[in-house]
Amino acid sequence: MKIIGVVTSGGDAPGMNAAIRGVVRIAYSKNFEVIGFERGWEGLLINSFKRLNPRSVGGILHLGGTILHTSRCPEFKKDEAIKKAAETLALNNVDGLIVIGGNGSLQGALELSKETGTLIVGVPASIDNDVFGTDETIGFDTAVNTAVTEIDKIRDTAVSLERIFIVEVMGRKRGFLALAVGLTVGAEMILIPEVNYESEKIFQTIREAKERGKKSAIIVAAEGVGDNRQLANEIEKATEAEVRLSVLGYTQRGGNPSARSRFLASLFADKAVELISEGQKSRAVVFRDGKITNIGLEESCKTEKPIDLSLLELARVLTT
Amino acid sequence: MKIIGVVTSGGDAPGMNAAIRGVVRIAYSKNFEVIGFERGWEGLLINSFKRLNPRSVGGILHLGGTILHTSRCPEFKKDEAIKKAAETLALNNVDGLIVIGGNGSLQGALELSKETGTLIVGVPASIDNDVFGTDETIGFDTAVNTAVTEIDKIRDTAVSLERIFIVEVMGRKRGFLALAVGLTVGAEMILIPEVNYESEKIFQTIREAKERGKKSAIIVAAEGVGDNRQLANEIEKATEAEVRLSVLGYTQRGGNPSARSRFLASLFADKAVELISEGQKSRAVVFRDGKITNIGLEESCKTEKPIDLSLLELARVLTT
Amino acid sequence: MKIIGVVTSGGDAPGMNAAIRGVVRIAYSKNFEVIGFERGWEGLLINSFKRLNPRSVGGILHLGGTILHTSRCPEFKKDEAIKKAAETLALNNVDGLIVIGGNGSLQGALELSKETGTLIVGVPASIDNDVFGTDETIGFDTAVNTAVTEIDKIRDTAVSLERIFIVEVMGRKRGFLALAVGLTVGAEMILIPEVNYESEKIFQTIREAKERGKKSAIIVAAEGVGDNRQLANEIEKATEAEVRLSVLGYTQRGGNPSARSRFLASLFADKAVELISEGQKSRAVVFRDGKITNIGLEESCKTEKPIDLSLLELARVLTT
Amino acid sequence: MKIIGVVTSGGDAPGMNAAIRGVVRIAYSKNFEVIGFERGWEGLLINSFKRLNPRSVGGILHLGGTILHTSRCPEFKKDEAIKKAAETLALNNVDGLIVIGGNGSLQGALELSKETGTLIVGVPASIDNDVFGTDETIGFDTAVNTAVTEIDKIRDTAVSLERIFIVEVMGRKRGFLALAVGLTVGAEMILIPEVNYESEKIFQTIREAKERGKKSAIIVAAEGVGDNRQLANEIEKATEAEVRLSVLGYTQRGGNPSARSRFLASLFADKAVELISEGQKSRAVVFRDGKITNIGLEESCKTEKPIDLSLLELARVLTT
Repeated sequence: MKIIGVVTSGGDAPGMNAAIRGVVRIAYSKNFEVIGFERGWEGLLINSFKRLNPRSVGGILHLGGTILHTSRCPEFKKDEAIKKAAETLALNNVDGLIVIGGNGSLQGALELSKETGTLIVGVPASIDNDVFGTDETIGFDTAVNTAVTEIDKIRDTAVSLERIFIVEVMGRKRGFLALAVGLTVGAEMILIPEVNYESEKIFQTIREAKERGKKSAIIVAAEGVGDNRQLANEIEKATEAEVRLSVLGYTQRGGNPSARSRFLASLFADKAVELISEGQKSRAVVFRDGKITNIGLEESCKTEKPIDLSLLELARVLTT
Repeated sequence: MKIIGVVTSGGDAPGMNAAIRGVVRIAYSKNFEVIGFERGWEGLLINSFKRLNPRSVGGILHLGGTILHTSRCPEFKKDEAIKKAAETLALNNVDGLIVIGGNGSLQGALELSKETGTLIVGVPASIDNDVFGTDETIGFDTAVNTAVTEIDKIRDTAVSLERIFIVEVMGRKRGFLALAVGLTVGAEMILIPEVNYESEKIFQTIREAKERGKKSAIIVAAEGVGDNRQLANEIEKATEAEVRLSVLGYTQRGGNPSARSRFLASLFADKAVELISEGQKSRAVVFRDGKITNIGLEESCKTEKPIDLSLLELARVLTT
Repeated sequence: MKIIGVVTSGGDAPGMNAAIRGVVRIAYSKNFEVIGFERGWEGLLINSFKRLNPRSVGGILHLGGTILHTSRCPEFKKDEAIKKAAETLALNNVDGLIVIGGNGSLQGALELSKETGTLIVGVPASIDNDVFGTDETIGFDTAVNTAVTEIDKIRDTAVSLERIFIVEVMGRKRGFLALAVGLTVGAEMILIPEVNYESEKIFQTIREAKERGKKSAIIVAAEGVGDNRQLANEIEKATEAEVRLSVLGYTQRGGNPSARSRFLASLFADKAVELISEGQKSRAVVFRDGKITNIGLEESCKTEKPIDLSLLELARVLTT
Repeated sequence: MKIIGVVTSGGDAPGMNAAIRGVVRIAYSKNFEVIGFERGWEGLLINSFKRLNPRSVGGILHLGGTILHTSRCPEFKKDEAIKKAAETLALNNVDGLIVIGGNGSLQGALELSKETGTLIVGVPASIDNDVFGTDETIGFDTAVNTAVTEIDKIRDTAVSLERIFIVEVMGRKRGFLALAVGLTVGAEMILIPEVNYESEKIFQTIREAKERGKKSAIIVAAEGVGDNRQLANEIEKATEAEVRLSVLGYTQRGGNPSARSRFLASLFADKAVELISEGQKSRAVVFRDGKITNIGLEESCKTEKPIDLSLLELARVLTT
């Protein structure tokens, strides 16, 4: 009988629990055993895990966070750490390890896969949606909806008080979240790290919107864009409008996963276990062109994911 | 300058307003005018419309329903009605008409396109997701999330009282909504019209779940499946469990559209105006394999959309 | 050291878990032990309980349902059942029992208090808000908000399709829930069991609203009012309007408790433990005139709670 | 026929629209006319208003913000401004003015009432709940629930990553919002401006919680408490735990009002119009001891509202 390990690593994302549940139940249907390493890579370093069975993952499908807990583990880039983790896998006779996490976690998985005979499969889970090769990561849709719901509320105040709001959303170094959120809340402007902006052009856009009769504005800015507090001050000076900054923060990471995040998590889990049962090495499951498939783990974490800038232009026209 | 007409028809779906906003603003960016026919086909029969400009569609992106109102219009299948609508289009010099609605509406659009020189473009909007050629319709993702959120609540009671709930979701004659909802709430069973079920097998599944230690169960049943009240009674008799029926009803049609429904509406609107500006006749915009594209209006409404039954099997395994 | 028992009984209500948590942690702060009887009165009949401590009630404050489970237990009105329960209390040396539930549960508590030396305190928890002596029960505010949120969605469809909706809400034989919901969604009409209505007057109100320019209407009807399906048919015939019935159902019982339901649960729990530590017999904690206090258990469950009909008149004026 | 003016002033609060709707419809039922001054006091300074009737306040009951818009207007403390506003009231023959807003707005109303013969009634609307004489202000319950819902999400991350979060909520100089939120999310600590805290004691509490087995913690801190960023750094240093700050920000001001905020707004509006029809001068409507009543405008805005510190102690016990 095969033993499958599962671990959630890096920042948490809504739907991680749905993925854990999926892995466990699919695995059991194939007569595999499952052990869940705790607190991300740390669990592999100190051999901390719990046995999981179909009953122990009951009632978690709809919960945010991860029952296995997670951690950011910078030392996991070092050779000794990787070796220690490989030993833990060997010690527990783990045939395949499913790593649920974002870009950093997949890179850790890749390093580990070079050091061990255990089959490693990466499952992209991140609210940032910045993993190459997949159109969507687990948790992204939830985070977008959380941000959209919150900005819908902020707009009430923006309109009533006729103010400009800069709303900072997460996304680390990339603009996927900001772009999706900005387009769907009808933001008057979207600032993402992939596009350099000139302050003067922002001021101009705000002045023009004012002339078209818009008395309030929402600017959605990615956290990766720079100092949004300073930008707020600059806009205030240049346009004589009242400008407020609102940093949405950690609410974007939590909460019950959306239907789509649960769906993606379930299908990713199914595919991940299948890859292990087929004996495939170092793969990442992805959702691409409307289908679940898989690519090399190395490709998924070593390639920069392109962003569709035509959506920025569409967003611009839609807010005129 | 071109004149574009827009109409929402049939049952309402969250995101219709986002689509109207998109059509108007994209159209204006190309120097077209837009008129919105009111109350679905009725507006074309009695020449009732209002002029729309970028300001008149402000503040509606996030609202459910449709500012143009809609109606079910059975007489629109008759020749005279179609002729009358064609006259209205000619009278107002409408170059292109964008019809936002479900299967029935697209069929009306097809009939009308045969009778008029006006370019007709269909935009699939329906919580049922039953339009051929598109992986998703406007409003579907919102309806799925609404149902999932509600069933998450019902599960609190199901677990606390150790009961079985049959939850009836919409979907008309098809099971797309029930399948997506059932999979993402972790329903112990999913009943859809595309699959015949034997009562005895249902009883058996419930008995087995009980033996595995499950004291409550959620059965998600499409409205198209038949008499779910009677089914509840039958299960109660056969399994001696307490069974309750909950019909989710019209909440599934309304509410603020999810980010994804807004996104799809915006991209569909963009493509629809583009098709008209290119002079393309009788097309339907669709979302297929992760991309916005278009197919013939006739193909979209004359072909039965296939359903992926492998998801039923996945759902079964995931709930064990 | 004292031993406190806690039990949730009857229909579940959001906030029951918050109350259990409150009882356990307050009790421990006074050096009492707590045992939780399972599945309502059934747990007292078969001596089924689990020991609870501050850690075992962690992470449940915000969850709907009840971790102790609950049941409806009609046989608990019989003498033998009451005696069996009294024996269970004696067997476990329970000094005080806190019964969390609605009217029926408080009546059971009263019967039991006559049979046992154990101090019994009732904590009103019910989405129906029909317990005498308290302005509000645990769960009521949550249920009102759930219904209001759902009807806000239904209104999108009502307005877009220009239809009349009868929305049936819970409340058992009383109209507290319907009245609060109807007033806060701006229902065009509110039907409650405490007021007889004449069909003709309903028809008249709808016709008048139509004349004032209202093309859609929401009628909020308590489940206790009678056959709302039939009413829908009658209105349809009499007014030639399209009428739909939507039964909100069990979503009203579940879901994360609102802040207010958690607040009330916490304060009730605090007071309940205090009453036991003071040795007070057969009391019910209540929220009255903005304050937490207590009344006799007998008074709370033997008196019919009055309803403020002036709110009906206010609702009528507010919807003109 | 009487003419009633209505104005929303200061920060917006969810339920202001419900109050406007209430004022207009109640007033019309008494055959009064209503005019709505726009942009807070500014509308009274520049005589900017719109006529309101029962139809013009349709469809706003459930919307956040205020259709009359609002503004902060510091110059309204000057004599000339007050005189100008009094002239505007006279010019438009306004018999009574209903001022919907927080503490600052009621103070403006008081000044104005000294300068004019127009009857002035204050309606407390503020998410801060800091108006003396009323147990609750319009919008408070909504803001509490918004913050609670967001912190429930943050807890997912706090638990999964085993971190400490300081969550800053609004409330201006007072701690009503923080106290209500902290108690109902089960915050491990609540910091409010009314209570001085010693850093060392906070560190100690966190260390003790850790020893009791709590690996994460939520500290709810009022914005009025001081520099929460600095506090986060200090805790991090002192306890060697990872600490994150999340500032909930403007989402707390917006969004659809909760049922309770709508309810309070409706009853306040009813009472406010009644007071004007009775010819009462300089009153504020309040909700006290479970009942709607009224007090002197001067008393309401010149007295500091006491806060119930026993709730802090209860919160402490509940989180052990």
